[in-house]
Amino acid sequence: MRGYTFYEGAIRAFQDRSLLSKILVIGTVSGGSAVAFSDSRPFQRIYGDSGEGEFKKKKVVVLGTGWAGTTFLKILKSNSFEVQVVSPRNYFAFTPLLPSVTNGTVEARSIVEPIRNIVRKKGMDIQFKEAECYKIDAEKKQIYCRTTEDRTCGGKEEFALDYDILVIAMGAQANTFNTPGVVEHAHFLKEVEHAQRIRRSVIDCFERASLPNLSDEERKKILHFVVVGGGPTGVEFAAALHDFVIDDLSKLYPSLKEFTRITLLEAGDHILNMFDKRITASAEEKFKRDGIDLKTGSMVVKLSDKEISTKDRATGQISSIPYGMVVWSTGIGTRPVIMDFMKQIGQANRRVLATDEWLRVEGCESVYALGDCATINQRKVMEDISAIFSKADKNNTGKLNVKDLKEVVKDICERYPQVEIYLNKKQLKNINVLLKNAEEDPKKASMEFDIEKFKKALSEVDSQMKHLPATAQVASQEGAYLANCFNRMEQCEKNPEGPLRFRGAGRHRFHPFRYKHFGQFAPLGGEEAAAQLELPFDWISVGRGSQWLWYSVYASKQISWRTRFLVISDWRRRFMFGRDSSRI
Amino acid sequence: MRGYTFYEGAIRAFQDRSLLSKILVIGTVSGGSAVAFSDSRPFQRIYGDSGEGEFKKKKVVVLGTGWAGTTFLKILKSNSFEVQVVSPRNYFAFTPLLPSVTNGTVEARSIVEPIRNIVRKKGMDIQFKEAECYKIDAEKKQIYCRTTEDRTCGGKEEFALDYDILVIAMGAQANTFNTPGVVEHAHFLKEVEHAQRIRRSVIDCFERASLPNLSDEERKKILHFVVVGGGPTGVEFAAALHDFVIDDLSKLYPSLKEFTRITLLEAGDHILNMFDKRITASAEEKFKRDGIDLKTGSMVVKLSDKEISTKDRATGQISSIPYGMVVWSTGIGTRPVIMDFMKQIGQANRRVLATDEWLRVEGCESVYALGDCATINQRKVMEDISAIFSKADKNNTGKLNVKDLKEVVKDICERYPQVEIYLNKKQLKNINVLLKNAEEDPKKASMEFDIEKFKKALSEVDSQMKHLPATAQVASQEGAYLANCFNRMEQCEKNPEGPLRFRGAGRHRFHPFRYKHFGQFAPLGGEEAAAQLELPFDWISVGRGSQWLWYSVYASKQISWRTRFLVISDWRRRFMFGRDSSRI
Repeated sequence: MRGYTFYEGAIRAFQDRSLLSKILVIGTVSGGSAVAFSDSRPFQRIYGDSGEGEFKKKKVVVLGTGWAGTTFLKILKSNSFEVQVVSPRNYFAFTPLLPSVTNGTVEARSIVEPIRNIVRKKGMDIQFKEAECYKIDAEKKQIYCRTTEDRTCGGKEEFALDYDILVIAMGAQANTFNTPGVVEHAHFLKEVEHAQRIRRSVIDCFERASLPNLSDEERKKILHFVVVGGGPTGVEFAAALHDFVIDDLSKLYPSLKEFTRITLLEAGDHILNMFDKRITASAEEKFKRDGIDLKTGSMVVKLSDKEISTKDRATGQISSIPYGMVVWSTGIGTRPVIMDFMKQIGQANRRVLATDEWLRVEGCESVYALGDCATINQRKVMEDISAIFSKADKNNTGKLNVKDLKEVVKDICERYPQVEIYLNKKQLKNINVLLKNAEEDPKKASMEFDIEKFKKALSEVDSQMKHLPATAQVASQEGAYLANCFNRMEQCEKNPEGPLRFRGAGRHRFHPFRYKHFGQFAPLGGEEAAAQLELPFDWISVGRGSQWLWYSVYASKQISWRTRFLVISDWRRRFMFGRDSSRI
Repeated sequence: MRGYTFYEGAIRAFQDRSLLSKILVIGTVSGGSAVAFSDSRPFQRIYGDSGEGEFKKKKVVVLGTGWAGTTFLKILKSNSFEVQVVSPRNYFAFTPLLPSVTNGTVEARSIVEPIRNIVRKKGMDIQFKEAECYKIDAEKKQIYCRTTEDRTCGGKEEFALDYDILVIAMGAQANTFNTPGVVEHAHFLKEVEHAQRIRRSVIDCFERASLPNLSDEERKKILHFVVVGGGPTGVEFAAALHDFVIDDLSKLYPSLKEFTRITLLEAGDHILNMFDKRITASAEEKFKRDGIDLKTGSMVVKLSDKEISTKDRATGQISSIPYGMVVWSTGIGTRPVIMDFMKQIGQANRRVLATDEWLRVEGCESVYALGDCATINQRKVMEDISAIFSKADKNNTGKLNVKDLKEVVKDICERYPQVEIYLNKKQLKNINVLLKNAEEDPKKASMEFDIEKFKKALSEVDSQMKHLPATAQVASQEGAYLANCFNRMEQCEKNPEGPLRFRGAGRHRFHPFRYKHFGQFAPLGGEEAAAQLELPFDWISVGRGSQWLWYSVYASKQISWRTRFLVISDWRRRFMFGRDSSRI
């Protein structure tokens, strides 16, 4: 057994660190998902022709049991729907722990929870079908499904389902950028099976390198592990692999330690480029200390069964290195069924499904898309500028005064969140100040604005529009938001709570979706992690404290008490006995 | 969480059961493997030509990392050998818990321990190669190995190893009795992967039966689970599956409970026929109560992808039943490499490798075989009767008197254990009484015996020879025995401790292998088990108490503290949260 236990370690890390302890408590208590807002229109079809009050139970089909789909199901309370869930996985997986599964710090079983278990206790009309949807027909409002290939019970089964409302939360697949050989020879790290396969593969490499009759050259090749992509997943995996080699494998295969090498390839100039520069620098420094070979500015152009070929971005030079195993983690690509669906609805040129701020798929009625398979196409202020002006100019004077503006400013900021971001960025108090600043001579600024002045003042706000990252945090908040909309459908039908419709009459039924970023982690191995948190202030930290914060936040975010218990047991077991290297 | 915890349950089961508590303590403290004896000749080759004292480090190759091989490695202490271990599994698996893995009561990872971990701490010259041996060449003293098919790292690798001593402990494979379709369509339960596959397959069947567009008939077919073989493994698996359905799956798939059926097919008249009749009756009664469909006297003649065809032994009638999944557990068959080796050494007509009482393969020098791939061919008294007589008749008088007999009786009983069993069975005090009884008129019995009288008296003792069962207990004791022989090689070379050689000069170097049966368990599901233990008295029990005894014995027998910790955690987790049904 190791020298000190998990709990002792935790206690040490928190001694004399009261801030950390407090954050830990908050993280542990808060538990999960975000507060959600909501909006209208999508649900018009749900109501009968009479328009008000008469409510029919509508068929909702949810595709996917990842972060978005599962959070949606977890928070959905309304009994007004008959829900069918279709996914090739009959479980939810806590994907941020996948890198920990690749080295056995955490067991695969500890991060999954059957979807039936999650919905069972709700007493709602939710049915699950384990199948993959291979076609969506938006015209007929049908989806077509089949059982997946590797199932051992009976032959292939196909079926179709009708829907009134479709919620697409199928996630994404790994993006190979069409690099030749990647699909055939590389490992991905998006599913539980991927992580299990990587774990077996690492052991396979060590076992193979232990066989007799191999040259040192061959051993070096077999034990060369290449990670492609310096995002959080790639970095965490490289760190996890390094830990596995140092903590466990080097003891069991002592003669092979000298042959083992880990290379991290990143096309950009730095790893973890979505983090603060200080974190990037610390991570690069840590990897250097650990002997992980970090090659930035290096693009993979080809993968054969033995070699990986890279192109140096600066010099254009192409070089090839033999490898034993490659893990590919360079971002997300579109699933074929989504691609096909986008063609149907006129989004053929896009990479992911475009939705509006209420998560409704553009150009398609009664279909919602959330999580990694979708992105929110924010409405530009400039496209609606005349409509906004006329709405504010109630008396059609052609001029807006302060009073007019006061009445709509909240709606503008809610409908077009880029305005608020722009104001914050320019450190302006409110939209009036922004309009005043648009005057050439602010001192002379009148308190009335015509359309031109209005346009000029807001001309730059659209530059603040941002796409949300493809993370579990975004997907989960979107799922929670949509479920809350569904839950309060009737109530918000009667009392719409969203912003003014600038291009129509009345108000939007729900508030639009608003993402709240809590921060992110990147474990760097050796019980160190990088953390960048959005507390009331920005908080950046790299080291052991962050790793313990990571433990507590990840434990608190588990979907069930069972997985929480198992994940914590696994961590403790790792501290006590190390990681298992049995090839199962 | 469930109503009461693992520990509370344990306490309840032991309240007012002091005998059980005591046994539990013994079981937990005793920990493992048996006391071992030992013998000679095998090691003559290990010594140099000079014959005495000069010791060269000899190459020992061990094939297999199951009970026999691993126990051998664990107990081996002598530094006089250079040991190479070859096995397609780089771990030891606690196979008696495989049925518990099929339903997730225990995780696969919890019952395996890397072989490198087991040998690492010994500081001995032991190397492991993960490969399968596909040919043994006894002439050249070489074995030929290759990497197994499903490895993901690199291509196929082949190599050969020389040996001075070969220890064959490869176990056996499932025996299909050449029944058509079994290999293609049935599941086996001999390896960890088998158990994992069965678990996934059970979930697959439930998921498949949940799909729309299926008739009730089809659902019934998909959820018909057939277990072939009423031995301890088949019975325990049927019970484990029943528990899984009742405790867990019926809650998650409530509409499918009525379609689920478990059938246990046994060719003999009763299940668990190696146990006491009372246990068999209780088990059959329990299965009847549980609704497990038990069909005895029913032989499987064919398996298609949809139907299983059986023949009623009594009526000869053949009938077919549709099924969703079949688990085949009818005993053990020979691996092809062993079959091939048996042909080489003139054992072509046998089912398993024959060894003598010192575990040396007959007709082959320096090769040992133990565990399920071998059986001990006991020496018959009748074959050696003349040699025994002359050895005892030191002065060549043609008569044995009591004194002559006293000097060899211990050796006879040790070399031919059937004599002792026969005496015990007939309730005779010693061999003198047996000889006396051979007189027609016992009253007139003289105290001298000639060869004819000697033959007559011992004529029936060979009927008491028994083959050892193919169990973990036997394999483990054999492994321990052999390791102890290897450990005390030098010492016993100088001071042989075995019985007299009746057909040669001097004494055998080691005591022959003697199996000590401690008893056996058969869990019957619903927290009940059957136990038949050989304490100082025979002890039979069926029920909850036996199940708790089973828990404690199985925990105590784990190969490492890690697996012990994990198995106990798994049991506790199951009590708290039930079993997981995620399809991973």
